Amino acid sequence: MANAEIVAIGSELLLGQIVDTNSAWIGGQLALAGIDSHFQTKVGDNLGRIVGCIRQALERSDAVILCGGLGPTQDDITREAIAEVLGRKLVFQPALYAQITDFFTRLGRTTSPNNRKQAYIPEGAIPIENPVGTAPGFIAEQDGKAIITVPGVPHEMRYFMEHSVLPYLRTKLGIREVIVSRVLKLFGIGESLVDERLKDLIEEGTNPTIGLLAHTHIGEIHVRLTAKATEQARAEALNAALEVKVRERLGEFIFGVDEETYEGVLNALLVKAGRTLAVAETAFGSSVAQTLKTMEGSGQFFRLGVTVVTPETAQKLLSVPVSLWQDGQGVNAATAKALAEGARRLAGSDLGLGITGRASEEKGRDHLIHIALASDGKTECSEQQWPARMRYIENRMTKLALDQVKKHLLS
Amino acid sequence: MANAEIVAIGSELLLGQIVDTNSAWIGGQLALAGIDSHFQTKVGDNLGRIVGCIRQALERSDAVILCGGLGPTQDDITREAIAEVLGRKLVFQPALYAQITDFFTRLGRTTSPNNRKQAYIPEGAIPIENPVGTAPGFIAEQDGKAIITVPGVPHEMRYFMEHSVLPYLRTKLGIREVIVSRVLKLFGIGESLVDERLKDLIEEGTNPTIGLLAHTHIGEIHVRLTAKATEQARAEALNAALEVKVRERLGEFIFGVDEETYEGVLNALLVKAGRTLAVAETAFGSSVAQTLKTMEGSGQFFRLGVTVVTPETAQKLLSVPVSLWQDGQGVNAATAKALAEGARRLAGSDLGLGITGRASEEKGRDHLIHIALASDGKTECSEQQWPARMRYIENRMTKLALDQVKKHLLS
Repeated sequence: MANAEIVAIGSELLLGQIVDTNSAWIGGQLALAGIDSHFQTKVGDNLGRIVGCIRQALERSDAVILCGGLGPTQDDITREAIAEVLGRKLVFQPALYAQITDFFTRLGRTTSPNNRKQAYIPEGAIPIENPVGTAPGFIAEQDGKAIITVPGVPHEMRYFMEHSVLPYLRTKLGIREVIVSRVLKLFGIGESLVDERLKDLIEEGTNPTIGLLAHTHIGEIHVRLTAKATEQARAEALNAALEVKVRERLGEFIFGVDEETYEGVLNALLVKAGRTLAVAETAFGSSVAQTLKTMEGSGQFFRLGVTVVTPETAQKLLSVPVSLWQDGQGVNAATAKALAEGARRLAGSDLGLGITGRASEEKGRDHLIHIALASDGKTECSEQQWPARMRYIENRMTKLALDQVKKHLLS
Repeated sequence: MANAEIVAIGSELLLGQIVDTNSAWIGGQLALAGIDSHFQTKVGDNLGRIVGCIRQALERSDAVILCGGLGPTQDDITREAIAEVLGRKLVFQPALYAQITDFFTRLGRTTSPNNRKQAYIPEGAIPIENPVGTAPGFIAEQDGKAIITVPGVPHEMRYFMEHSVLPYLRTKLGIREVIVSRVLKLFGIGESLVDERLKDLIEEGTNPTIGLLAHTHIGEIHVRLTAKATEQARAEALNAALEVKVRERLGEFIFGVDEETYEGVLNALLVKAGRTLAVAETAFGSSVAQTLKTMEGSGQFFRLGVTVVTPETAQKLLSVPVSLWQDGQGVNAATAKALAEGARRLAGSDLGLGITGRASEEKGRDHLIHIALASDGKTECSEQQWPARMRYIENRMTKLALDQVKKHLLS
C-alpha cells in the first residue's frame, strides 16, 4: 500500500501555543483515499531540522506533505528547506505573485514587500494556486517521490488537499481502489450495547469493516461501515447490504447518516410538522433555547426561550409555584412540568419544554435532570440520573430534550 | 539547553479519529521548565515503528516521553517496544498490580485478566504510580538518557507530568534556571495596535521576553512576559518591572492576568456590585444569557434571559413595537433599546441588556450588532459592524455585551 508522511512545521506547535489539528485531518483524508500514513512529525522553524525531517520522510515514504511555514515572514522557511533537500534554487513565479496581489486587492489591502517571497517555488516544481488565501503551494518530484506543501491555515489546507493534493496522490500512487465509508449515527444507546448487538458482524467483517466510535460529549455512537472496491458503486453496494443488517438490530436508535446531525434532523422535522415551541430552563445555562434558536429557519417554529435562576422570577413569569423549590433548586418533576406549561402559555406555542437540573461534583450524589414536554392537554416528564463522574451533562441533557420533542412529533 | 522529545502512540491519532492534544500540552510544560522539545512524533500501534521512533529520539535528545499505548488491550505495546530498545525483559510488579485492582474496586468494578499486563515494567525501571487511573507508567534510564511513559488519557497524562515527570527531568537534566511567565489579558484592542504600542519593548526584550498571542475566537490579546532567573522570586520581579511598563501603555485594556477569565472578572464585579440583570436577545442564539447564567453564583445577579425570534412574541412579552422590525429582523438601535427596557421591566431587575444582530455571509454586507443597556432612567446603545468574512461573531458579541455591563459597573 502506498504511503505518505505528514510534517507539520512551526515552533508554536511544539510550544503548545497551537494544537496541530491539521495532521489529524490530513491523516483521516489519506486513510479514506487508501493511503497509509505511518508517521506524523511536528518540527519547529529551524532549517536544519526541517531538512532532516524531509530527508527522513523521503527515505521511508512515497510522499511527504509539509504543512505550514509558507507565510511571508522570516520564520517561514519551508520553501528554503525543500530547495536545500532537492538541491534546486527557488524561482519567482509571476503568475503566483499576480494571484497574491489580486487576493489582497479583493480584501481591500495592499501586499507588503515580504509577500513577494511567497511567489518563489523550487525550479521545476508544479505550483498549486491558492484562491482562498495568500500562500501558494507546490509539488516537487524527485527520484519518484513527491514533496508537497500546504498552508497551515486550516481552511486553506483543506482546500489544497481536496482540490490538488489528494487527486495528485491518487494518480501518482496509482490508487485504483476506492474506499467508501458510510456512517450510521445513533443516539439513546450505550457503546457496549451497540458492540454486543453487532459483535458477530464486527468480527466477521473484512470488507466492509465496521468501526464504532463513541462521541461521549454529545452522547452519540457512530457506526462506520467501510468498503473497498475498484468502483464507487460496488463499494456503496457492499456498505448498503451491511447497513440493512445493522438497521435490523439497531434501527430504532439511528437518527441519521454521514453528514447529518441530530439538530439538523430535528430541525427538518419541526419545520415539516409546522408546530411551534417554547422552552423554559432553570438547569445550567440556556442551552436548549440556544440550540433551537440557532437552527436554520428557527423563526418558523421557535417562539420563546426563558432562562431563570430564582423561584420568584419563575413564579412571576411562568406561574411556577415557589413552594416547589423546597429543595432550594427546584429540581423535581413538578417544577419541570410547571415550567413547560408556563413557557407554552406565555409564548402561545403548540409545545412547551421545561427543564430543571442539578450538576453534582460530589461522589455518591448523582447529576439529576428533569425534562417536561407540555402539549395540548398533556404534560409528560422524564427523569435522568447520571453518576457524578460523568461529563458533558449539559450537552447530553440538551440532546435528551430534543429527543423528547422528536419522539412527540413522530408519535 | 537540555531537550526532550515527545512520541504520541496510537493508530487512532494517525487516522485523525482523535486529535493529539497531549503533545502540545507536554511541549508547553517542557518549555516552561526550560527544556527544549525539537520534535514531536505520532506513530501507530506497530512494534517495529515504535521501536524505530524511540531509537531515533534517544540519538538526538536527552529524554523521550512516550504518550499512550499503556492500556490493557492487544494494541497497547508501548511496554514491549521499550523492552526491545533497552534489551531488558518486562517484570511483574505486585505493588503496581495492587494499585490497579484497588482503583477498580473503588469504581465498583473488577479487573479483567488483561489488566495484569499493565503491571509489567522493564527490569530496573522506576515505576510511576497512577492514583487517577489504571495505567501505571515508568522511567527507564540507559546510557545517561531516559525513556519515560505517560498514559494517553489527558487528565492522567497531566497528573504524571506534574507529579513525576517534570520533577524528574528538572533534577536529571540539572536545570537550575526557573522560567516564570505572566500573562496580561486584553480585550477591546486589536493585535496590530498592541504590537505597535509595545514594539520597542518587544524588540529590546531578552529577559523578560514579550510574546503576543491573539485569541481571535474570544476577541482577546494575551501579552506573555517570560523571565528566567536562578530563583523564582527574581524571575517574578523581572516580570513585575516589565508589567508596570506594559500597563502604562495598555492598562485600560487589561482586564485580568494569568488564569483569570473575562467572565470570572465580570462575575466577581456583579456579585460585589449587588446589582441584578436581565437580558433579551434576538440575535443568533441566547449566548449572553447562557454566559451570565452559567457564572458561579449567578442566582445573586442574573434574573432573566428571554430569547425570541418573532416580532409578535417580542411585542407581547417585552412591549417591543412590531413596527420596529421593518427590516424584517429588527436589527436597529431602537429595537435593542426596547428589548433592554422590556427585559428590565419584565424581570424587575436593576439592569437590562437588549441585543439584536444579523450575521452576513454576503461579501460587501457587514455583520451588524446592536447592544443596549437599560438602567435607572437611561438606556444606551452601541453599534458594531464587522466585515462579512469575520468569524466568531457570537463570541465577540457576547464579550462586547459583558463589556458594556462592566463599564457601567465601573463608571
